[in-house]
Amino acid sequence: MITIHGYSPSGNCHKLRMLLGHLGRVEGRDFRWIETDSAHGATRTPDYLAKNPNGKVPMIETADGRVMVESNAILAWLADGTPYFGGDAWQRAQTLSWMFFEQYSHEPYIAVARFICGWTPLDSPRRADLPRLRERGNEALAVMEKHLASNEWFSSTGYGIADIALFAYTHCAQDGGFHLAAYPAVSHWLDRVRAQRGFVPMAPVAAENQALIRASRGG
Amino acid sequence: MITIHGYSPSGNCHKLRMLLGHLGRVEGRDFRWIETDSAHGATRTPDYLAKNPNGKVPMIETADGRVMVESNAILAWLADGTPYFGGDAWQRAQTLSWMFFEQYSHEPYIAVARFICGWTPLDSPRRADLPRLRERGNEALAVMEKHLASNEWFSSTGYGIADIALFAYTHCAQDGGFHLAAYPAVSHWLDRVRAQRGFVPMAPVAAENQALIRASRGG
Repeated sequence: MITIHGYSPSGNCHKLRMLLGHLGRVEGRDFRWIETDSAHGATRTPDYLAKNPNGKVPMIETADGRVMVESNAILAWLADGTPYFGGDAWQRAQTLSWMFFEQYSHEPYIAVARFICGWTPLDSPRRADLPRLRERGNEALAVMEKHLASNEWFSSTGYGIADIALFAYTHCAQDGGFHLAAYPAVSHWLDRVRAQRGFVPMAPVAAENQALIRASRGG
Repeated sequence: MITIHGYSPSGNCHKLRMLLGHLGRVEGRDFRWIETDSAHGATRTPDYLAKNPNGKVPMIETADGRVMVESNAILAWLADGTPYFGGDAWQRAQTLSWMFFEQYSHEPYIAVARFICGWTPLDSPRRADLPRLRERGNEALAVMEKHLASNEWFSSTGYGIADIALFAYTHCAQDGGFHLAAYPAVSHWLDRVRAQRGFVPMAPVAAENQALIRASRGG
């Protein structure tokens, strides 16, 4: 049994639930989820930092006590030998390329804008960053839109872990003030992802965070 | 023959020269390097963006015209089947984990601080970001120092692509105002990397950038 330390509203954590759902793994039977509220310090305790000095979620532990961190590396391990990370060396590296794009050019803007809107007070000084985050996040969405003009998926050999990695924060980008209607190919791709067998939707965001997201739309 | 579009002072680009050196590949015979000055717009031309809509270096092209971007994905492809990306699925994923750490928790602080110090004017408003970048970059160096207390390398099965990825901007972190003497295990690891067979040092930074880096030290 794998143990996942994860925060349910985090897209990075949700990636693992998505892939495990596609693989037919059942929560409680094949893996357990320890809710770890990274927005309120649960990843900065001495016990947690002893396992993951970088203090982030998700983190997994195997039955024999081995630890792995970094959502996209965990996806690569869980999907190894499955169609979700298929192909030859070139194709697998192309799948990884989109996963590095996600962590460098997408998540730091789209996920961070969502976090600021939903998890910081309305008078937070971090809100001054939102225009720049939205500019860079829209650049990432435009790169995705362009790719989808001639490709069905981001993973090389069909739906797979690069799609899961990019779905995680793209599908809730509107929480951070992005307008997905401006990206029709991305919107259709999101629908194709949701139609995949075993797809698990993200848990609803708590009421207090939803209220902040709604209030941010006025700004 | 592989073509690399790269900017020599970029650590992300230098990663490829390092790995190719270890693999015994010779510039001019096995690969060619097209110097692409990303600091002066060479990655924003229509021709370049047609190949890489994300407008970054490095980018490689194969003899038959296939393109790959993202430095760490290119490393994974070039090193596939070699000891530089060895091990079973768990070990390879652990190597990737450090490469995702590098792109998310290390490069955006340590590389960006270096870029601001050496590639922006002394009165650039971006210099106001330096204290925060140095704080987060020092957190990344502390995570590396902790790992090296009980591990010789970041790659799972001996020196490999995770070490190359992390060496790229760690070895020149002082250009961004970091003090590597505070991280003795990291400093010794840098020396072990430099002693590897086929190691290629980074090209010297141009005089104008060196002057800016020197001037930044006073600030």
